[in-house]
Amino acid sequence: MQAQLIALDWGTTSLRAYLLGPAGQVLKMRSLACGIMQLPNTPRLIADHWCADGFELAFDEACADWLQDNPGIAVIACGMVGSAQGWHEAAYRETPASLGALSTALQTVRSVRGVEVHIVPGVIQHSTLPNVMRGEETQVLGVLQTHPHLNDCLIGLPGSHSKWVQVQDGCLVHFDTFMTGELYAAVCEHTILGRTQQQAEQFDAAAFDRGVQVALSPDGERGPLSTLFSARTLSLTGQLSPVQQPDYVSGLLIGHELVALGNVLRRRRGGQPLPAIILIGNSQLCERYRRALGACGFADVSLAEQATEQGLWHLAQAAGLLQHTHLEA
Amino acid sequence: MQAQLIALDWGTTSLRAYLLGPAGQVLKMRSLACGIMQLPNTPRLIADHWCADGFELAFDEACADWLQDNPGIAVIACGMVGSAQGWHEAAYRETPASLGALSTALQTVRSVRGVEVHIVPGVIQHSTLPNVMRGEETQVLGVLQTHPHLNDCLIGLPGSHSKWVQVQDGCLVHFDTFMTGELYAAVCEHTILGRTQQQAEQFDAAAFDRGVQVALSPDGERGPLSTLFSARTLSLTGQLSPVQQPDYVSGLLIGHELVALGNVLRRRRGGQPLPAIILIGNSQLCERYRRALGACGFADVSLAEQATEQGLWHLAQAAGLLQHTHLEA
Repeated sequence: MQAQLIALDWGTTSLRAYLLGPAGQVLKMRSLACGIMQLPNTPRLIADHWCADGFELAFDEACADWLQDNPGIAVIACGMVGSAQGWHEAAYRETPASLGALSTALQTVRSVRGVEVHIVPGVIQHSTLPNVMRGEETQVLGVLQTHPHLNDCLIGLPGSHSKWVQVQDGCLVHFDTFMTGELYAAVCEHTILGRTQQQAEQFDAAAFDRGVQVALSPDGERGPLSTLFSARTLSLTGQLSPVQQPDYVSGLLIGHELVALGNVLRRRRGGQPLPAIILIGNSQLCERYRRALGACGFADVSLAEQATEQGLWHLAQAAGLLQHTHLEA
Repeated sequence: MQAQLIALDWGTTSLRAYLLGPAGQVLKMRSLACGIMQLPNTPRLIADHWCADGFELAFDEACADWLQDNPGIAVIACGMVGSAQGWHEAAYRETPASLGALSTALQTVRSVRGVEVHIVPGVIQHSTLPNVMRGEETQVLGVLQTHPHLNDCLIGLPGSHSKWVQVQDGCLVHFDTFMTGELYAAVCEHTILGRTQQQAEQFDAAAFDRGVQVALSPDGERGPLSTLFSARTLSLTGQLSPVQQPDYVSGLLIGHELVALGNVLRRRRGGQPLPAIILIGNSQLCERYRRALGACGFADVSLAEQATEQGLWHLAQAAGLLQHTHLEA
């Protein structure tokens, strides 16, 4: 099948490369540990140039054969690759942000092979406390394109920095960030709570649910700075075993995130019921969020797949990159 | 002046030793980096015994000359030295906890010199989520002894694990813990927020107050998991400089602690006004809390000094340790 687009999801710690065919089918996918904070650093020859640039080296490692096999193929990338620390900065675009607005704001960097890499800008929200995303905007647009009738819906992207994106009429209109994933890692690796933890072989749903219930309970009113200490005291009193502790803490933090989100949404929406939720991301993490969302009163939760590659495909199409490829093919 | 008591405040990272005279005056004080997690480990001769035990080595380093100069002097210790990882475990006593109850529950360990060290037990609260303290109970008792008419008062002990202790009729009746200090360190040292921070030469009150105000604002409703990200976005948008970030994050977290505490107290106390607050601890940290408490509606805030040594003195007195010393002197 004829390849049409190389689509890169290039974040802080990893680089995912997709080779997409007609209508955006995934022909091939590769995942490399070459995020912008851990780029390769061994210089080598690329297209007859001696090359030491980490972005060039990573790009070549991910795509050299695809580029050779598909001369003139278009390349598009989203994520931290467009940040100030990235390959080429693609300045944030403001909310409300649509497919059209972002597709006309792609920034281009020419690789040492002469291939142009089109970089998707992130999105900024100039609220009292500003908010930013890079990469998630592409995933949200992917969902909006594959579910064109979505409205009054909240798209959740759990992760190191979870995003909750309100969409309306095909636009990202508002979003909130929670540093839940990164704080979970910092708590487990760098506080006293980690000292008594033991990794379980599999997900302990009961321990996780218990953490969520604490966040929902009157004790939860004290907030995560306080309830986290219960992982220690329940352990000291023999009520929480070492292998239960990691999932209990995970449930606590995700529970606090969702309780706060629910409270904010209820206030923001007046009497309206909570919106439908679509989750995008790692399936195990989405499953945790699905459980916790149910406990927190979100009745309608579904999962979206292939959001990134679909978003990159539709952005490339809207930017006219695919037609160009087609002419050369 | 005749020394009456050696009083040890022996925590996780440090050991403070006080030589107390009549009525508990501090004759001498020493601070050693010999907490129970970083004990000395070079064996040496103590009282003709070859000794490799870290607790013995630290105790000798802190007090050998005082013990030699004051034969038969009583020794009392509080803090993590009485934990399961300490020198000798002094099991938790339950709330409500009074001077009388704790003074009859001292545990004794005999050192290689033949000196008995009396260890103060910690306190446990068997609430739905249990709560524990070790060392703070002694400080609270110190304040209660030196301010005998205190009632309906909340004693705050800011630190790695801040404690808020409700006292009534000379007893510790209820307490809450917030891991604010330890989480602040984990956030600054082990998350993306630390990467753009720069240590200021002095406390930036405006940045700190701004963080407190965010916690108090409608944005604060999302909780610290979310508002913390504003340290990054305000930085990205040029609204918060690298040197302002540490104190902004400090204000945010302390603000969230106190907003939650205020909400819980208002609910617990019905229509009654917020209680008077007495702070115990490091003076710079107490000053941060005093500022933030004022902003959060706590109108009556004062500071207590020498709480630990006063608490140890009164516990030793109640346990009859001082009379014993006196007879031998």
